[in-house]
Amino acid sequence: MSENGSQPARTPDKQNPARSLDAHVDRYAQRTAGMTASEIRALFAVASRPEVVSLAGGMPNLAALPLDSLAAEVSHLVAQDGQVALQYGSAHGVPQLREQICEIMALEGISAHPDDVMVTVGSQMALDMVTRIFCDPGDVVLAEGPSYVGALGSFAAYQADVVHVAMDDDGLQPEALRQAIAEVTARGGRIKFLYTIPNFHNPGGVTLAVQRRAEVLEICAQHGILVLEDNPYGLLGFDGQTYPALRSTDPDNVVYLGSFSKTFASGLRVGWVLAPHAVREKLVLAAESATLCPPTLNQMIVSRYLSTHDWKGQIKVFREQYRERRDAMLGALEQHMPEGCSWTCPDGGFYVWLTAPEGVDTKAMLPRAVTQRVAYASGTGFYRDQLGSRQMRLSYCYPTPERIREGVRRLANTLTEEMELVRTFGTTGRRSVPGPQAPSPDTA
Amino acid sequence: MSENGSQPARTPDKQNPARSLDAHVDRYAQRTAGMTASEIRALFAVASRPEVVSLAGGMPNLAALPLDSLAAEVSHLVAQDGQVALQYGSAHGVPQLREQICEIMALEGISAHPDDVMVTVGSQMALDMVTRIFCDPGDVVLAEGPSYVGALGSFAAYQADVVHVAMDDDGLQPEALRQAIAEVTARGGRIKFLYTIPNFHNPGGVTLAVQRRAEVLEICAQHGILVLEDNPYGLLGFDGQTYPALRSTDPDNVVYLGSFSKTFASGLRVGWVLAPHAVREKLVLAAESATLCPPTLNQMIVSRYLSTHDWKGQIKVFREQYRERRDAMLGALEQHMPEGCSWTCPDGGFYVWLTAPEGVDTKAMLPRAVTQRVAYASGTGFYRDQLGSRQMRLSYCYPTPERIREGVRRLANTLTEEMELVRTFGTTGRRSVPGPQAPSPDTA
Repeated sequence: MSENGSQPARTPDKQNPARSLDAHVDRYAQRTAGMTASEIRALFAVASRPEVVSLAGGMPNLAALPLDSLAAEVSHLVAQDGQVALQYGSAHGVPQLREQICEIMALEGISAHPDDVMVTVGSQMALDMVTRIFCDPGDVVLAEGPSYVGALGSFAAYQADVVHVAMDDDGLQPEALRQAIAEVTARGGRIKFLYTIPNFHNPGGVTLAVQRRAEVLEICAQHGILVLEDNPYGLLGFDGQTYPALRSTDPDNVVYLGSFSKTFASGLRVGWVLAPHAVREKLVLAAESATLCPPTLNQMIVSRYLSTHDWKGQIKVFREQYRERRDAMLGALEQHMPEGCSWTCPDGGFYVWLTAPEGVDTKAMLPRAVTQRVAYASGTGFYRDQLGSRQMRLSYCYPTPERIREGVRRLANTLTEEMELVRTFGTTGRRSVPGPQAPSPDTA
Repeated sequence: MSENGSQPARTPDKQNPARSLDAHVDRYAQRTAGMTASEIRALFAVASRPEVVSLAGGMPNLAALPLDSLAAEVSHLVAQDGQVALQYGSAHGVPQLREQICEIMALEGISAHPDDVMVTVGSQMALDMVTRIFCDPGDVVLAEGPSYVGALGSFAAYQADVVHVAMDDDGLQPEALRQAIAEVTARGGRIKFLYTIPNFHNPGGVTLAVQRRAEVLEICAQHGILVLEDNPYGLLGFDGQTYPALRSTDPDNVVYLGSFSKTFASGLRVGWVLAPHAVREKLVLAAESATLCPPTLNQMIVSRYLSTHDWKGQIKVFREQYRERRDAMLGALEQHMPEGCSWTCPDGGFYVWLTAPEGVDTKAMLPRAVTQRVAYASGTGFYRDQLGSRQMRLSYCYPTPERIREGVRRLANTLTEEMELVRTFGTTGRRSVPGPQAPSPDTA
């Protein structure tokens, strides 16, 4: 079949028959129906080409890490304590690290006992374990709209239904929370917990106002709803500010998730969960069946890093880098974005949430943006319903300020062309539902 | 209440109110009902006291690892490639490691493409992910009786029912497999897969005879039952022998699990799953929701170790150590065990499975054994039903030969006393169901 005799003939089905036919299709569990490749992941291959400015990913910038001194510490660890570091540990986690984690959490007002901390393989595993012990199929999880795509993935894996709660520039709206609870309760739904990222929201870029925190906790306590507080960015406030953790106010009704992925090194996969004692016991049992134990070496690396390095100084360096990048992005957005666009102004964390003018479908536009050598995460991936089609998440964590400015310039061009198409032909995509639950515009 | 005025008075409920009252008890998912602390884990605290010879755990002996050269390699890795090693990776795993894994599997006759391998946080996570994508509540998993306690934990976490299949000295009995399938099918049960450890079974200590392998595969294929082959010990045959993997014969119907925990370092938590292409795609989606990605650093450490060290020579060293320990255990059992005891004679792996005379309840006896400073894993933990009460698993992987001999001597004394009690008072425990599905005695 090939014109060129030197190449073997290939037809699509012969090339990879497994892709077109899955012999196991009738065997999968029902939960696999909810497992779909996230739009962001699907985009990784193309967006990671060097000519494309990726504003899509959430990779922390590790360039500032002191690799040489880290290498020396890790080497010492393996040579001196290798018999322990390379051996199985407990599912609960290394005791010394759990003590240090308590010291870190104290920075946000949390008073906790190391026994109530469990170390996990990134806070993603903590999310998965919490969902595992609480959610039966059909149970409801409340979550901000938009919400963290990895959390939505865990909830889907346990067949929990997600009901989104609207945010504004001050984060989760208490009134919207009350409404959501009333609606779910009225239709007989069983709410298991409120999943919330109070600080420097992913992807919203907003922070739950301090004066709202007590109210949110009170609403949940009133209705017997557990709060799952996810706080990977809490120490990355650009002015060095921290906010009181929800857990600090209501220890009995909040399960708290933390991570070293954004303040130290994501590739070590070390996160944690702090939970009321009885819940923590259940979590350890669940974790044993999931991974037996988190990697011992990685826990000891983090523990040693915390003991031997100026980790607070390192976080300050990260903060300053991210602030510079945030400034680069906001400046470029102001300069280049066409009229009708709006976006959030984060004072910490990694993300800006942008809303395009009506008629623009950011998912449909994405291939055109990539053609113009810029990538972003389209908004629909951050909802379990069809919302977010006018929105996109822009990350400033990884590219340099110069690349961020160039990326925003390209994105502005793409959007301008898209809006011309919209004016000429109407909507450009099939799914143009606007995103009323998205944070309100902030064009200040 | 205290006689001694210097100690504060403590009542049990005041001491730890959380233990006696769980405010969240009505919120847990149904699956938590199946989550119980494994008998082995519950024992760890007491069994790890230095004066106790623990024949209970499954910790590999890492004393022979070349820690200094490993430390140098890891240091080089962090200093040179830290930006990659400490960063997020893909849920699929590091490509170079997946290629090397294919070379390792080739030693047991497996021909595989690196695309079809997914790296996991130990093979425990692989077990968990396979169960996640295949098992709805009430689905049936067939597994040898006894079976690996961690696998039973994963199956319970997804509310799958386990039906045990009898073994003898040649491993899983094909006839018993046929019977189990017929029985489950007759009562309308839906069998999702056969979970089997063909080589150097944990805890059985037996190996599936080569001539049985084709038959087991054929039975499963005939009945549309997937085979989940768990092979952590395959390269630890004491004569350097390997057996053809089930996967090598039936690539389309076998999902294969491998691990570096027993051949390199358990504390790194690096395992893998090899699956038909479409299944592997589902597994990657499931793994994203579980941990985002396995730790990058750990995968690169293993990859580098495989490239720069004589890993086959290292496995030979492990094998010889474990053979010496196995010999120590079998010799001591021959010398000390009272009449009526029988045990398996493993030719690889970590474990001997011992059957005590009728009337002995190994779980009830355990506290008395620990008082005599020896610990083991009682048999009931390796079944989902009430079987195994006369059995125990003895590990020879971790203690030195001298300690093993001393431990067996103590255990023999305990058993002898126990049997005197049985002769005097009848059975010593409440659950004295014998274990007909256990491997048959081998007192040769």
